[in-house]
Amino acid sequence: MAAADRARLGVGMVGYSFMGAAHSQAWRTAPRFFDLPLAVDMRVVAGRSADGVAAAADRLGWQESTTDWRTLLTRDDVDVIDVCTPGNTHAEIAVAALDAGKHVLCEKPLANSVAEAEQMVAAADRAAARGVRAMVGFTYRRVPAIQLARQLVADGRIGQVRHVRAQYLQDWLSDPSTPLNWRLDKDKAGSGALGDIGAHVVDLTQFITGERLTGVSGMLETFVRERPVATEFSGLSGSGGTETGPVSVDDAAVFFGRMSGGALASYEATRYAQGRKNAIRIEINGSAGSLAFDFEDMNVLHFFDAAEPAETAGFRRIVVTEPEHRYIEAWWPAGHGLGYEHAFTHQVVDLVGALAAGDQPTPSFADGLAVQRVLDAVERSASDKHRWIDLT
Amino acid sequence: MAAADRARLGVGMVGYSFMGAAHSQAWRTAPRFFDLPLAVDMRVVAGRSADGVAAAADRLGWQESTTDWRTLLTRDDVDVIDVCTPGNTHAEIAVAALDAGKHVLCEKPLANSVAEAEQMVAAADRAAARGVRAMVGFTYRRVPAIQLARQLVADGRIGQVRHVRAQYLQDWLSDPSTPLNWRLDKDKAGSGALGDIGAHVVDLTQFITGERLTGVSGMLETFVRERPVATEFSGLSGSGGTETGPVSVDDAAVFFGRMSGGALASYEATRYAQGRKNAIRIEINGSAGSLAFDFEDMNVLHFFDAAEPAETAGFRRIVVTEPEHRYIEAWWPAGHGLGYEHAFTHQVVDLVGALAAGDQPTPSFADGLAVQRVLDAVERSASDKHRWIDLT
Amino acid sequence: MAAADRARLGVGMVGYSFMGAAHSQAWRTAPRFFDLPLAVDMRVVAGRSADGVAAAADRLGWQESTTDWRTLLTRDDVDVIDVCTPGNTHAEIAVAALDAGKHVLCEKPLANSVAEAEQMVAAADRAAARGVRAMVGFTYRRVPAIQLARQLVADGRIGQVRHVRAQYLQDWLSDPSTPLNWRLDKDKAGSGALGDIGAHVVDLTQFITGERLTGVSGMLETFVRERPVATEFSGLSGSGGTETGPVSVDDAAVFFGRMSGGALASYEATRYAQGRKNAIRIEINGSAGSLAFDFEDMNVLHFFDAAEPAETAGFRRIVVTEPEHRYIEAWWPAGHGLGYEHAFTHQVVDLVGALAAGDQPTPSFADGLAVQRVLDAVERSASDKHRWIDLT
Amino acid sequence: MAAADRARLGVGMVGYSFMGAAHSQAWRTAPRFFDLPLAVDMRVVAGRSADGVAAAADRLGWQESTTDWRTLLTRDDVDVIDVCTPGNTHAEIAVAALDAGKHVLCEKPLANSVAEAEQMVAAADRAAARGVRAMVGFTYRRVPAIQLARQLVADGRIGQVRHVRAQYLQDWLSDPSTPLNWRLDKDKAGSGALGDIGAHVVDLTQFITGERLTGVSGMLETFVRERPVATEFSGLSGSGGTETGPVSVDDAAVFFGRMSGGALASYEATRYAQGRKNAIRIEINGSAGSLAFDFEDMNVLHFFDAAEPAETAGFRRIVVTEPEHRYIEAWWPAGHGLGYEHAFTHQVVDLVGALAAGDQPTPSFADGLAVQRVLDAVERSASDKHRWIDLT
Repeated sequence: MAAADRARLGVGMVGYSFMGAAHSQAWRTAPRFFDLPLAVDMRVVAGRSADGVAAAADRLGWQESTTDWRTLLTRDDVDVIDVCTPGNTHAEIAVAALDAGKHVLCEKPLANSVAEAEQMVAAADRAAARGVRAMVGFTYRRVPAIQLARQLVADGRIGQVRHVRAQYLQDWLSDPSTPLNWRLDKDKAGSGALGDIGAHVVDLTQFITGERLTGVSGMLETFVRERPVATEFSGLSGSGGTETGPVSVDDAAVFFGRMSGGALASYEATRYAQGRKNAIRIEINGSAGSLAFDFEDMNVLHFFDAAEPAETAGFRRIVVTEPEHRYIEAWWPAGHGLGYEHAFTHQVVDLVGALAAGDQPTPSFADGLAVQRVLDAVERSASDKHRWIDLT
Repeated sequence: MAAADRARLGVGMVGYSFMGAAHSQAWRTAPRFFDLPLAVDMRVVAGRSADGVAAAADRLGWQESTTDWRTLLTRDDVDVIDVCTPGNTHAEIAVAALDAGKHVLCEKPLANSVAEAEQMVAAADRAAARGVRAMVGFTYRRVPAIQLARQLVADGRIGQVRHVRAQYLQDWLSDPSTPLNWRLDKDKAGSGALGDIGAHVVDLTQFITGERLTGVSGMLETFVRERPVATEFSGLSGSGGTETGPVSVDDAAVFFGRMSGGALASYEATRYAQGRKNAIRIEINGSAGSLAFDFEDMNVLHFFDAAEPAETAGFRRIVVTEPEHRYIEAWWPAGHGLGYEHAFTHQVVDLVGALAAGDQPTPSFADGLAVQRVLDAVERSASDKHRWIDLT
Repeated sequence: MAAADRARLGVGMVGYSFMGAAHSQAWRTAPRFFDLPLAVDMRVVAGRSADGVAAAADRLGWQESTTDWRTLLTRDDVDVIDVCTPGNTHAEIAVAALDAGKHVLCEKPLANSVAEAEQMVAAADRAAARGVRAMVGFTYRRVPAIQLARQLVADGRIGQVRHVRAQYLQDWLSDPSTPLNWRLDKDKAGSGALGDIGAHVVDLTQFITGERLTGVSGMLETFVRERPVATEFSGLSGSGGTETGPVSVDDAAVFFGRMSGGALASYEATRYAQGRKNAIRIEINGSAGSLAFDFEDMNVLHFFDAAEPAETAGFRRIVVTEPEHRYIEAWWPAGHGLGYEHAFTHQVVDLVGALAAGDQPTPSFADGLAVQRVLDAVERSASDKHRWIDLT
Repeated sequence: MAAADRARLGVGMVGYSFMGAAHSQAWRTAPRFFDLPLAVDMRVVAGRSADGVAAAADRLGWQESTTDWRTLLTRDDVDVIDVCTPGNTHAEIAVAALDAGKHVLCEKPLANSVAEAEQMVAAADRAAARGVRAMVGFTYRRVPAIQLARQLVADGRIGQVRHVRAQYLQDWLSDPSTPLNWRLDKDKAGSGALGDIGAHVVDLTQFITGERLTGVSGMLETFVRERPVATEFSGLSGSGGTETGPVSVDDAAVFFGRMSGGALASYEATRYAQGRKNAIRIEINGSAGSLAFDFEDMNVLHFFDAAEPAETAGFRRIVVTEPEHRYIEAWWPAGHGLGYEHAFTHQVVDLVGALAAGDQPTPSFADGLAVQRVLDAVERSASDKHRWIDLT
């Protein structure tokens, strides 16, 4: 489609830290590789520090900046609001935006509590009635290998799902001298490893299988309960000063559950797995085959097809970089792998496509709420002797 | 030591199927590669079918055969009785043997119930007072990579253990037409995947960490509840007839627990993981490093040392075939890997060494009972809404 | 550095196909993640088709387009010319640009012949005397894992290099119905797999070791000598019509050589390795350690340190995504891997840095000529009974 | 077959070191797992030291020992002579044995020179006319994954072979203080890495493809030309004294060649690849698929089937432990992997089977000569400026 023929899509973003940088790269890059039906217009970024947000606008490619995110609600040139702030602000911003008639892309986890998430779903429902759309940013769904996994399950290639096995392993808190940051503060982050990374594997397994968890038992642990307070000059990995403060979230979560189709599911999320940097591991065993994925090798999906004769059956290492694979044709030749941030670009592509078509983008806020309910159930189980919590 | 100087160790074996074949290979082979302090004398094998056991004796290298295992108890030329029968007979045979003054090597799981296992431990204690020894055959402990893992933990190389993650995955029951066999009969096998293969990973993780599980929550599932009855001519993978019978054991088990040192532990055992043939996967994350093992690559241990500078830190793929590694010097040059059955040979080496030295061999019956208690707790949890069962 | 304080660097690009798209993404992205000392200004892109180049300018983010690359030579607002055309035009464009006082970034291989490459080096030398810089685009040098490999060699971590083992394996020509394109035309491409992909592994191994090849013997092969002529509507993987034409370049190259430090080196480049999509494999064995890399897992470097005790020695799988690794701090947290195109962004970063500092960027045209001489020697060897060709 | 019905096969072995131990384990073990048509009778082992060979007989399971291998030639109870001595004695022993009417199993390489190998082939031909058989011990052919590779090629699953890529990498000479042993003495070993390990990959690639090398160019290198003389108490890895002696063989070999079907082939053999213990790596690319093998993961074959749709195509990791795979049914259940020595047991199984059937066992002495000719051509090429040597 020629540029001149395309309607414009004005975008405003709230927050400009790690997720803001990733989302900005996606908004900038999507139109360069994909034929988007709308012309992306990176209007404005909002943040609390005037200097900080102005510098971010310059660095990240936004035309304007503001310290008041509420001004985005009334701007005619802003069609979609992209929420990249910590979880405790998601509900307020997203609900206000939707009620103001703005489409919303909200980072995960949808909210810090089920109650907030329910309010957001209600707002999304109200908005949908007016053609206004809401989507939650479970970005890893848009890694091409994950898309292929979903498709193989949907095509019946692994049969009935019997086992789901998912881990999200990081190690950046292994060192007790790593200082506090907002992700370790329950008021801002809602939970720790459970909501930050566990949420991803809950969503991914529900997405790939097309099923929902119907109940869980879980346990949580905080290994290091006091950490140095970060000083002005310390970064994520910087050394803190002598002052310490409490860690108010979980460091790690282990839980099992039952999928709606009857499969046994086991999960683990931790920031204490020494040597595992961002290992999102998912294995699914079905009656007719199996799938395995590890984000440390993100361009690859392993697929076992039990229909093969035993003599030549084996897990296939599919390098998911062929033009036949979703999103790939827009990028590079086979074998020229994608990286972490490409999934954000795909998220923009899918969102813009849905908005132009008037479709509900996925994952919806309801999908986000479903994840939130799982996280909540794990927390309740963990705090009550690991008892089983039904989700139905 | 010259052969003539060595005292003889008369061995009698009960059972001659899969485990009997593996144990026989070990008894035959150990003296060929290791300098054993006692001369192994493969006296007699016992089994129920006269023809079957006679043929087995010929094939497996035993001097005699008998259909009455009780005759072994009174033979002066039998010093040790090696119990390779299904779990429902372990207690009777092992207790009788110990009480008759025979050392016992008993296949795992120690028994089909905690009560039986406790009787066996009591018998082992009585026997120990007379210098008679009992050992349970958790053979995988003797894979050199597992020995190295244990040593690295004992040496403090991974620090305080925070996560234990263990899976034992097979797929031979994925096909519903695979016929019934004794391993699917609760009366003979005690339990299914839980006791047959889950027992191994429980033991291995307790061995490697030097810790015990202090409580568990678990779930069990039987995916295929009726199977064809095996006919005379059908083997493990043979096709059954039209008659079917019930599967009375679990097909799969998922559970989590807490180690005595505080670590979170998650376990899974299944015979329905399509494409995984004998995948014993163990990963342990500590404050100072991590270990990972997969029996599908049994000569390798992965070790992450967090003391390395970040720039060059990474999981080391240690090929555990150096003369510095336990058991290896007796075998082949570096890189000439061992197979499944070698661990059985190492078991004989360690048992004979302990007997000659008058030491208690490990794993002891008490170690076997500890595993049995975990299995029992998982079953109780699974049958009572997955509630937490304390093991202390 | 504040944007206003930075001098501008006007960029003109020639060619807008595969390499043009990759370079454009790099010019757009580098300033978003890195603090560049000059402000990149994407002025103009040149191409032969007026419509094509205008559309490319719009898509790729260039302010203007032109069908006459020579107009770039006289524009004051163009400081650097980025040559992304087929190899047969490199010499003409690069020499003209350098002589016109423009810095040049020229895609690899430097030229289609040693004679052309020598002219380019001469032009680069003339230009350097006036502070004008020339660089050749061996982009894979800028994969962080390759940078780490170079550093470990330079730091003596693998000792004296004894073996170099390099393969560049693709499979896109395995199917004889894949149609002709310019890469199969000797007039445009110079050579086939040898110059297109073999050039990369020659450069990479010389870069990592800091040594040069001193002689080679080689063999070339063209497996499929006639292919369909591509029709208007067929792309790289499209089906051609009934007309066929000759393949005038090699399909595959195998050669060995000797490094200046005495190591034995073996190389292979092919487009017929079924299942290998873009497998750039490099292994280097030294007296004190080894390194291994495979672009199919591009964020990883394997390092064996022979100084480790045998008991715990093993290839370390270093995930090269730590802030301590080159280029990484500007991107994402550990474990959030980079993709193919990031190396192009790093190339822009390094080029702009060198230009701002007045330094010679590397790889220089002389480095490109060194590679060209190796390719030429392989071709001469292959055409003369594989005889040894000295390169000194 | 009942034992009493089987004719006996008397075996005599010459040499009792590394290969003697491996062969003995095979002679002992084969009848325990396989239904052999002849009853193996381990009669006598011959060696130079009376004490050494007597101890070896006891340890390895031979009924008698002798210091004069010639006595085996005239014993009626010896039907087959198993030659496990260094290469310089193969021709003398094997020719004498064949001429005396004894079947011969001769360790690889067949001989230390083409001339010797030709004499041996002539003797084998003479013997064959009388029903006496000769076989050379390229044992790695009998790794189940290699058998599967051969079968897939023979079945056309990878189409026309285009690339052969083979490496045999060890590192035990990397340390210059490793003392001299007979493998470094040209008089005894014939050549170094080339004949000791390069011979294996030449044979394996010719076996798997069913093709022969038609010409080669090669280079050899001796990195460490003087080494300590081993003292009485130093073993393979022991430290020598202050006296040094010359290394008279190659440390490493690199060569390329052309297969009879037109494929390009590249080879490497070295004892200086730090961190690679016994890495036998073979990759074969054909028009319809590819195969890859690495002995460091010996129970696995990787297979790429280009007939698969691009979306799900990928290298399959076939765990070659199914009953459908050659030799496996006699061993353990799926996933219970084999080790290095099992291939020797398979060698005995195949040899005994051929002898009972009156068939020519493979690999024949002619196969061994074919390998010898390649080794010889590589040496001639290396000593004459790496020029091409035709093998047809």
